[in-house]
Amino acid sequence: MRRRTVYFVSDQTGVTSETVGHSVLAQFQGLEVREVTMPFISNVEKAHEAVRRINRTAEEEGARPIVFSTLVEDELRGIVMKCNALFLDCFAGLVLPLERELERRSSHRTGRSHPVADAVYTLRMDAINYALTNDDGAGGDYGRADVVLVGVSRSGKTPTCLYMALQYGVFAANYPLTDDELEAGVLPRRLEAHRKKLHALTLTPERLRQIREERRPQSRYSSPQQIQYELRAAEAIFARYGIAVLDTTESSIEEIASRILNVAGVERRLRP
Amino acid sequence: MRRRTVYFVSDQTGVTSETVGHSVLAQFQGLEVREVTMPFISNVEKAHEAVRRINRTAEEEGARPIVFSTLVEDELRGIVMKCNALFLDCFAGLVLPLERELERRSSHRTGRSHPVADAVYTLRMDAINYALTNDDGAGGDYGRADVVLVGVSRSGKTPTCLYMALQYGVFAANYPLTDDELEAGVLPRRLEAHRKKLHALTLTPERLRQIREERRPQSRYSSPQQIQYELRAAEAIFARYGIAVLDTTESSIEEIASRILNVAGVERRLRP
Repeated sequence: MRRRTVYFVSDQTGVTSETVGHSVLAQFQGLEVREVTMPFISNVEKAHEAVRRINRTAEEEGARPIVFSTLVEDELRGIVMKCNALFLDCFAGLVLPLERELERRSSHRTGRSHPVADAVYTLRMDAINYALTNDDGAGGDYGRADVVLVGVSRSGKTPTCLYMALQYGVFAANYPLTDDELEAGVLPRRLEAHRKKLHALTLTPERLRQIREERRPQSRYSSPQQIQYELRAAEAIFARYGIAVLDTTESSIEEIASRILNVAGVERRLRP
Repeated sequence: MRRRTVYFVSDQTGVTSETVGHSVLAQFQGLEVREVTMPFISNVEKAHEAVRRINRTAEEEGARPIVFSTLVEDELRGIVMKCNALFLDCFAGLVLPLERELERRSSHRTGRSHPVADAVYTLRMDAINYALTNDDGAGGDYGRADVVLVGVSRSGKTPTCLYMALQYGVFAANYPLTDDELEAGVLPRRLEAHRKKLHALTLTPERLRQIREERRPQSRYSSPQQIQYELRAAEAIFARYGIAVLDTTESSIEEIASRILNVAGVERRLRP
């Protein structure tokens, strides 16, 4: 099967069409695609230009591109949907039933789904600042945390905290267990005081070794002995304090974040 | 109109149903909703439990909830769609036309759309580490950057860089113009060398004041005089070096990121 070009066309950022398109395409295993985002297609000229570009691709590649569209203005969608491609409207089948259910018309104009200059925006910024200030054992303002991730170095704590802050406005701190703590088998007191917020990340020794090898090849840090030791000692601490443990070996950042919020019962203050 | 409860139901993280649902609901202005994510509905028991929960809400609130679903397994979707709610399948109308176009069946199983333990995963981690290491003028490894954001303190640089790293695997650094640079009207040499990668963020004095006031109320940092001065001096620098400027006053992080990638012509190495 030929490789296809996939266009994500939007009158806004393109995030929604990218997300939906990506999810749908993931159900077609082994499909080879080249992906192109076309954001801010917000007037007639840009819509025509998008069509020209898509049609050029169709000609050059000898296969129709696939277009995931979130265009909501009828005129713009009407122009782009005539392109030489499989045109998929991500909102088709969603807006009409909602209009009926809510007994009102939708705006048929792009709604902004991300916070701009309001209370939610401020909250999001605060959550990001919090994650940065309380990253990697720094800060230590755990009273304000929704969750505090603990684990050995490179278990996925920092990206998960940043993701939770950016996407969900959740206040997430993280603390890497130090050599002293691993040896003594005890948590520092300032963490113990917030035991209920603690969530542990772990992963297999093989995977951790792979990750650490990429950062510091052939070091003590990435040696099998050291990794084995750290993981065992950390898991002993988690067991001792009854901390819920999540294995991140086969997980994306999105999965880790979603699982932790689920288990912790933490409210998402905003959504992607 | 009554406030409605909106459920985002997924056999995976829920990110896609949240994103689509949010986008669609944004087209209904003034609609009041309570949002609940139900991720990892991955077996029959969980599906029935989801239905019970949705039906309870319908009864308690006297109005049908709205369900955005990305369930792809027929059995699970079949169970949940019988709940007492407006059931909206985010993938309806997308999968079938794609199956026809590609002349193959989709897996009808959840595809994972986010990277796990592969080259893309590593790239994402590298981009996040890069953003953290080269944040706020630190690091300075601009040779590796895809883009370098410049601007005064609190113009939105850090969140945008983190977002671009997490969602797109883009290497984004940022540099806050210092007092010395603003006064002299010149960029530091290590930035000038990467002039083509530079993108400037600015915003209105009113908005910047509001943001800074929240952080350091009644300080010199948040005074109208200081803000006026910094913004003018920064804009003079941007003009002098011919740096493209983006006004972030009315923009979400998503919009800033998407606009910059668009203008810079930077390839998205992964997608949300």
